[in-house]
Amino acid sequence: MANSSRRTTAFSEAEKAAVYRALLTRRDIRHFRPDPIPEEVLERLYQAFHAAPSVGLTQPWAIVEIRERATKERVFALHQEARARERALFQGKAQRVYDRLRLEGLLEAPLHLAVFQRPVARSLGHHTMPETLAYSVVLAVGNLWTAARAEGIGVGWVSILEPEAVARLLGAPPDYRLLAYLCLGYPRAWPDEPLLERAGWRQREPLLRYRERFP
Amino acid sequence: MANSSRRTTAFSEAEKAAVYRALLTRRDIRHFRPDPIPEEVLERLYQAFHAAPSVGLTQPWAIVEIRERATKERVFALHQEARARERALFQGKAQRVYDRLRLEGLLEAPLHLAVFQRPVARSLGHHTMPETLAYSVVLAVGNLWTAARAEGIGVGWVSILEPEAVARLLGAPPDYRLLAYLCLGYPRAWPDEPLLERAGWRQREPLLRYRERFP
Repeated sequence: MANSSRRTTAFSEAEKAAVYRALLTRRDIRHFRPDPIPEEVLERLYQAFHAAPSVGLTQPWAIVEIRERATKERVFALHQEARARERALFQGKAQRVYDRLRLEGLLEAPLHLAVFQRPVARSLGHHTMPETLAYSVVLAVGNLWTAARAEGIGVGWVSILEPEAVARLLGAPPDYRLLAYLCLGYPRAWPDEPLLERAGWRQREPLLRYRERFP
Repeated sequence: MANSSRRTTAFSEAEKAAVYRALLTRRDIRHFRPDPIPEEVLERLYQAFHAAPSVGLTQPWAIVEIRERATKERVFALHQEARARERALFQGKAQRVYDRLRLEGLLEAPLHLAVFQRPVARSLGHHTMPETLAYSVVLAVGNLWTAARAEGIGVGWVSILEPEAVARLLGAPPDYRLLAYLCLGYPRAWPDEPLLERAGWRQREPLLRYRERFP
């Protein structure tokens, strides 16, 4: 039984390679072409999003899709304010690199997704780790991001935004919490490396990995 | 240029299908066989983990691998304590279902991974959303979970644990924070549906999706 179950569910070498290709070549995209995302592709991305694991099967997420130019411009203005405040925290060379960084693609991207954590009835596992409700939403974003890579669609997560300001702008109920603000669209290019690495902001490091316990 | 770039990076239909298969058939696994995970497979899982996007490219994660029986038993005891406390929060039918649920596979799983958020130098984007540091670690867990599915390896995220107690047990530095505690191993079966759905704990719901703003 166990063997036959493993046989039917085993991934071929080609399938494994495809999964790793999606995970390893996924990038944070900030330069978009204007072509809209076809509705059937978006449905597939949502299917991947909604298949994420969630603590106690709570599925504590909700999405607002933004396509209107006026809303995008308001979100962009909020980003610019937050960016000016963040810029002041860096000095010297770091500030000069910061000024050169492209940190959003809000006006170009055909679609924005505002991803919220919504209130859910008490369930398993979030007594000891209440933050796992938020983490469930993040896992859903990760699923969408991986599926988007396979579809040739770029995703950029814009974190230089005051979450409460965006939630207000979108008329969110008070118990809904903005968790992620995403730009989606066909990218102008797929960079081989993270944009921040190419820009000289920060480099990739080896994975920190310990055996049995901390040294 | 854009065309040739899109050509070289486009996924075939078979590759797309493999990615969706991994995302849609991934499950939270709680029943493991004792076979160890080969080191080269574990290295590939870590490669997927470490390729996750992180805010400001901070890579704010660290992993402790647990293979010793004695440590597993200590973690299991912590889980049992937390479970007894959580059980008391449910009554009647919910408590009876709770008692039947398999909520961990700690003693069976050949490998545990304690995933930590580690302190990093100030970087981009976590001024407005400081929680994106934790979210980056969650995205890395999601990547590992998806790659594990393709490898035929099951992952269970045990959230019924006091994070501080586990961090103490593993000798974590005070500024390291336990983010996820994972059991890994070859599963006894791949369920077609989430275990909590099959057990009658909670059902899957339609995705909540709004246009432009909340109604």
